[in-house]
Amino acid sequence: MAFSFFNMCQLLGMNCNTPTDIIFSFEGFAQRGGLTDHHTDGWGIAFFEGRACRLLMDCQPSILSPVADLVRAYPIKSLNVIAHIRKATQGEVNLENCHPFVREMWGRQWVFAHNGNLVDFHPELDGRFHPVGTTDSERAFCYMLQKLREACPNSSAAQPPSLEDIHAALSAIAKDIARFGTFNFCLSNGQAMWAHCSTNLYYIVREHPFAHAHLLDKDVAINFAEHTTPQDRVAVMATAPLTDNEVWQKMLVGEFVMFKDGCPCGGLNPIQHYKRV
Amino acid sequence: MAFSFFNMCQLLGMNCNTPTDIIFSFEGFAQRGGLTDHHTDGWGIAFFEGRACRLLMDCQPSILSPVADLVRAYPIKSLNVIAHIRKATQGEVNLENCHPFVREMWGRQWVFAHNGNLVDFHPELDGRFHPVGTTDSERAFCYMLQKLREACPNSSAAQPPSLEDIHAALSAIAKDIARFGTFNFCLSNGQAMWAHCSTNLYYIVREHPFAHAHLLDKDVAINFAEHTTPQDRVAVMATAPLTDNEVWQKMLVGEFVMFKDGCPCGGLNPIQHYKRV
Repeated sequence: MAFSFFNMCQLLGMNCNTPTDIIFSFEGFAQRGGLTDHHTDGWGIAFFEGRACRLLMDCQPSILSPVADLVRAYPIKSLNVIAHIRKATQGEVNLENCHPFVREMWGRQWVFAHNGNLVDFHPELDGRFHPVGTTDSERAFCYMLQKLREACPNSSAAQPPSLEDIHAALSAIAKDIARFGTFNFCLSNGQAMWAHCSTNLYYIVREHPFAHAHLLDKDVAINFAEHTTPQDRVAVMATAPLTDNEVWQKMLVGEFVMFKDGCPCGGLNPIQHYKRV
Repeated sequence: MAFSFFNMCQLLGMNCNTPTDIIFSFEGFAQRGGLTDHHTDGWGIAFFEGRACRLLMDCQPSILSPVADLVRAYPIKSLNVIAHIRKATQGEVNLENCHPFVREMWGRQWVFAHNGNLVDFHPELDGRFHPVGTTDSERAFCYMLQKLREACPNSSAAQPPSLEDIHAALSAIAKDIARFGTFNFCLSNGQAMWAHCSTNLYYIVREHPFAHAHLLDKDVAINFAEHTTPQDRVAVMATAPLTDNEVWQKMLVGEFVMFKDGCPCGGLNPIQHYKRV
């Protein structure tokens, strides 16, 4: 069950309308960090709690990591989660180069993880956000925030831009950066989740009536109906489907979707996609 | 053995010349988060690894926290560590208000934790660094970085200021902020550790010949000679001494010291203090 056709890294994102733990999805995802796949150059996961986020990372493969054991054992409930397992393409294997990356802007944290490879991508950075490590991914993140700030020049922590304005600006910036190579990413500021597909990114929306799901990477099943209320809605994004008995929506090349309250609500034609699921 | 005379929070810092784990000191320190003392409104610890840092936090008291269990069980070696247990004075008990706080500047992470209370402290922030939570502490941190940036206007990730220039600028900024109340803090950028004493801050330098140490908050002892080489040097800072058989240096009111490679190397008269230990 190895996804050898996915080089580089793998992404996992979750956006919900009620705080939800990611243990089931993470259980399958973490298997790809050395067991069912070869993404062994570190991993990380960020959980939003309000405008702040909790970031757990390790340079060890996720199947061996005691920090990953903590994530499995300790159900952290969150509205927005981004996780990443790394197969290094650019930059050494160390903590500086572990995704997700975090920066503060307008008084809230922004979290970013990337699957892909940007070639000869060396944008001019004005110093407002600067990479700590040496990956193309962190450079892209810093550049995105810089350009987003430029696109919303009158914004501040007291008067942040609307999600619609952020979506429109990010859409153009993502398109611009994607010219340099493969640029699948998840980005969140704790209010919404943005996902960009350059080659491979899938999502699923789970809502009432909830059903059983069975992991692809491990023989684990869950009956979501036992853990939810009829009002709950959860969107999960992943580089490759995590379950083998659900229909995952493959995003289109160049598609950029905003998820809010567990629902795709901005993109090429998100409602149509969503109803197709 | 309760330190009831220490209201507010407690700080722990470590600066070394060789990567060192903080398990022994943290074992005693974590007891104060609910067992030997009443600092039960969350805790956090940041470990530098290169220019990046690993931040673990929890809103639960440190003696009950599974994240603290991870810190105890998993020896993370680092040159610079800052930990904090919180007794809330300003701001709700939530992750947004947990110390240490982290921001990126000049391509490296900066980490800050505060013990004290600043009254009517509402500096003008230019938006470069903005608090995510509602504490006086994070406001002070953002203001410090803003003023440090102003003091070194030609600096960048490619040309960062010298540690001496940073020390001189921070010294003036700390003095300025301390007018608003109690301002004990530890600050690190991964290259050095800065400690400011407004009321209570102690430090100890452990070096060859290493001796036994016994915790004050728990009946645990260690023979450092078994875990070190003669070249190792470790400076530990804490709101109150962590051991009962070593001489801890009480910092003077208003004193501001830079620690580098486990040694106090900038301050009012650090060498004299150091030799007095």
